[in-house]
Parts: sequence; structure tokens; C-alpha cells
Amino acid sequence: MAQNIYDNPAFFAGYSQLPRQVLGLDGAPEWPAIRAMLPDLRDKRVVDLGCGFGWASRWMREQGAASVLGLDLSQNMIERARRDTPDPAIEYRIADLDNLQLPPAAFDLAYSALTFHYVEDFARLIATLVQSLAPGGHLVFTIEHPIYMAAAKPDWLRDADGRLTWPVNGYSVEGERRTDWFAKGVLKHHRTLATTLNTLIEAGLRIDRIDEFAPTAAQIAALPALAEELERPMMLLVSAQR
Amino acid sequence: MAQNIYDNPAFFAGYSQLPRQVLGLDGAPEWPAIRAMLPDLRDKRVVDLGCGFGWASRWMREQGAASVLGLDLSQNMIERARRDTPDPAIEYRIADLDNLQLPPAAFDLAYSALTFHYVEDFARLIATLVQSLAPGGHLVFTIEHPIYMAAAKPDWLRDADGRLTWPVNGYSVEGERRTDWFAKGVLKHHRTLATTLNTLIEAGLRIDRIDEFAPTAAQIAALPALAEELERPMMLLVSAQR
Repeated sequence: MAQNIYDNPAFFAGYSQLPRQVLGLDGAPEWPAIRAMLPDLRDKRVVDLGCGFGWASRWMREQGAASVLGLDLSQNMIERARRDTPDPAIEYRIADLDNLQLPPAAFDLAYSALTFHYVEDFARLIATLVQSLAPGGHLVFTIEHPIYMAAAKPDWLRDADGRLTWPVNGYSVEGERRTDWFAKGVLKHHRTLATTLNTLIEAGLRIDRIDEFAPTAAQIAALPALAEELERPMMLLVSAQR
Repeated sequence: MAQNIYDNPAFFAGYSQLPRQVLGLDGAPEWPAIRAMLPDLRDKRVVDLGCGFGWASRWMREQGAASVLGLDLSQNMIERARRDTPDPAIEYRIADLDNLQLPPAAFDLAYSALTFHYVEDFARLIATLVQSLAPGGHLVFTIEHPIYMAAAKPDWLRDADGRLTWPVNGYSVEGERRTDWFAKGVLKHHRTLATTLNTLIEAGLRIDRIDEFAPTAAQIAALPALAEELERPMMLLVSAQR
């Protein structure tokens, strides 16, 4: 069972104030890159894994999706998503992705933002998703980048010349990583990029596109703090097809 | 035109003493991982890009390849490869991968070890290779990993806890990287992992497998210095198919 940090009151209070939770999709600088990876959503049956407050679920319906099933481990998130979504074609359910079951060929798109790095058994999850996709169905997801997650102390340091530098160590040693982020000991699961991509390929998916989110010049001009995202990728975006 | 550092006498003298040049393929710890990615070589027409002394070209013929065309920018390398190869089915030619031309559908396998990071226009090279592969043909190559190459000073440092750590900065800023390695100012071209993989996909290849070389426990037991390769990947291995 995944750690349910999102129902920790201190965590939830802090997390709810993030720009991407207050502003929705436009508060996430990687959102334009995700949009560019998504297939045409008209008439699509979508499952949104780690749906949070339901921002993406609602956006997908606005783009013409036939239905959206939003799943999240957090009761806090699901209750707020339900409150904010007056749309009978969107259903929200509490679900643990570590023991998720989904019906066969029930979806045309499986979408997930910044959730799969909480999942311990990635191969099991991907097998579940592949069988639940119709032939030709898409999987589009984002995770924290393994470059961002690998190190024992994942935080900026300076090299001998004073250059802002991101640390990488233990990259090839997969498994638990614990960090303090709104709460102590938030549990994530580090996998190499090779493991992430090979798991998809071995499950029968074709890799269509990879993105390691980097801000555009226009984004940096609007929000100069984003410039440091050029130094190392914080997020990995993947688009694959059954 | 690529920098021809391999014909710099000081560089060549140092480079020729590397275990992988003295011992051949068994001196390269990533060789078992490469072998695992290669298709059955029997009756295959192979092009070996950056063939060096011809170690891999000769091995492929021993595995049953019908013919091997070995290409290298360095006259030193090609002359030594010719001297060491009494096999009329292996041809060696001096070639610059930055303006390479190859006949259409002439090869079943394009293979390259630790060469493509010297190439400036990767998309041009890949398009050349794709049209020169027969349908179903394979591309298997290794490059220095972008994690290894990105930083302004790509060398070990210590984090605040004294942990051996690899620096990453400028990851999303692609282009020239110069390092001192047997000679001053060796020129390489940094590309993100996303660019490398998307270039293959956009050229019509299917990604079959990725490897970020990490030594096995047995390899570390035999050569303890390899343990640091667990901290960050030095090499990226890719297998793709037309």
C-alpha cells in the first residue's frame, strides 16, 4: 500500500497552497509540454491516475472527453474534487495504485501527473493499465525525473567554481527515497530512466515521445525563478501507445 | 566536420593504453550489456560507426556477420584496424559522421560505440542511417550519458555530508562541451536524453531497449573501482529498430 501522505493534515495544508493547486493547470509550468503530448480528447474514455483536486479531469471533459474516471489515494483530494466538479460524466474514486484493478479495454487514455513515483511496483501498475487500454489507446504521464530523485540529499549545491549544481548519486540503486516536503519522510520510489522506459516497452507499449521539462525563454521572462530548471530536469514526461 | 582528436599524437598515445584498447571488448565493462542488445548476427550486413581498432567489427564476423564496414574519422585507427584484420569481408574506411553518406537499404545492423557524442548534427546522421537500414534493420549504439556530459565541470565532488556525488548543471542547454581527456579541449556535443530518443522516433525507428550502464555485483567484486559507476550512469545504450 502506498504511503497516504496527502491525508496528513500538515502536508495537505502546505500542498494545497502550491501554485498548481491554487491556479490549477496554468500554475504548472510543464502543462504546455503535457498538452502537446496528449491525443485528441474528443469522445475519449479517460482514466486520470492521481487526479488530486480534479483540475485535469475537468479540463479533459472540456476538450470533449466522453468520460473521466479520476482516481486518488487521498480522501481529502477526492472529496474536494467531487465538490468542485458538477459533471456526471466525471467519477472520482479513492484508489491505491499499488493494488489497482481496472476493467479490460475500458479506456482510450490513461493519464497521470506526478504520481507514479509514489508507486512501488511500477511493472504491475503498467500491466494493469495496458490491459485496461483499448488497442491504440494512449498512456501519457509525468513523474519526478530520476536525475531529480536519485541523490541521498536532493538539493542544490555549488561546484568548486561556485556554479549552481544538482547532485546525483546512487542513480543505479533503485528503491525508496525519503524526503521532507511539507511533512517528514515523504516516501518515493526511485527508478532509473531505463527501467521506466523498458517497463513500458516490455508491457507492449510503443514509446512515442519523451520530454524532460525545461522552461521556455518566455516562461523564464515571466517567472525568472524558473531559470534554474535549465540546470537539471525536475520532471520526465512520457507518451506511449498500445 | 568533427574534431579529429584521435589523430592528435598525444591523445592517441594515451588513448591506445586504455584497457578497452589493449584488451579489446573484454576491457569494456559495458560490453555484456551491449551484447545483450544485439540481434542475431548471422548473415547480417553491418556498419560499425567509429570502429576504432576494429575489435567489434572482427567480433561480429566471428558471430557470423556476412560483412562489416568499419568507419572512423581517424587515420591512425583505420590503419591499425586494417593491420589487425586479415578478413576480406571487413572493409575499413575513413569517414566523418558529420557528412556521412551511405547507400539505401545496404545494412541490417548499424552499430556504434561511444562515438555519436562527437557528432554535431545527430538528426542528420540518424536520417542517413535509417535510409541505409533494410526494413527490420537494427540500430544499436552507446554514447556518453547526458548526465555524465552535461556539467561545466564533469568531475566528482562531495555533498555536504561528504557523499561522493556527480554534478549536473546546464542539462537542458544543449551544444558543445569541451573537456581535457588525453588532450586539451576535446569537443563533444551534449544532447538531452529526450532529444536523443525523440530523434530516433521522429526518424521512424522504434525504441526497443535502453540501458544506463551499471556494473554488476560480480564486476565490482572483480574490479572494485567500478563501484562508483553505481552513483551516476556514464553511458547510455540504445537499441532501436526500423
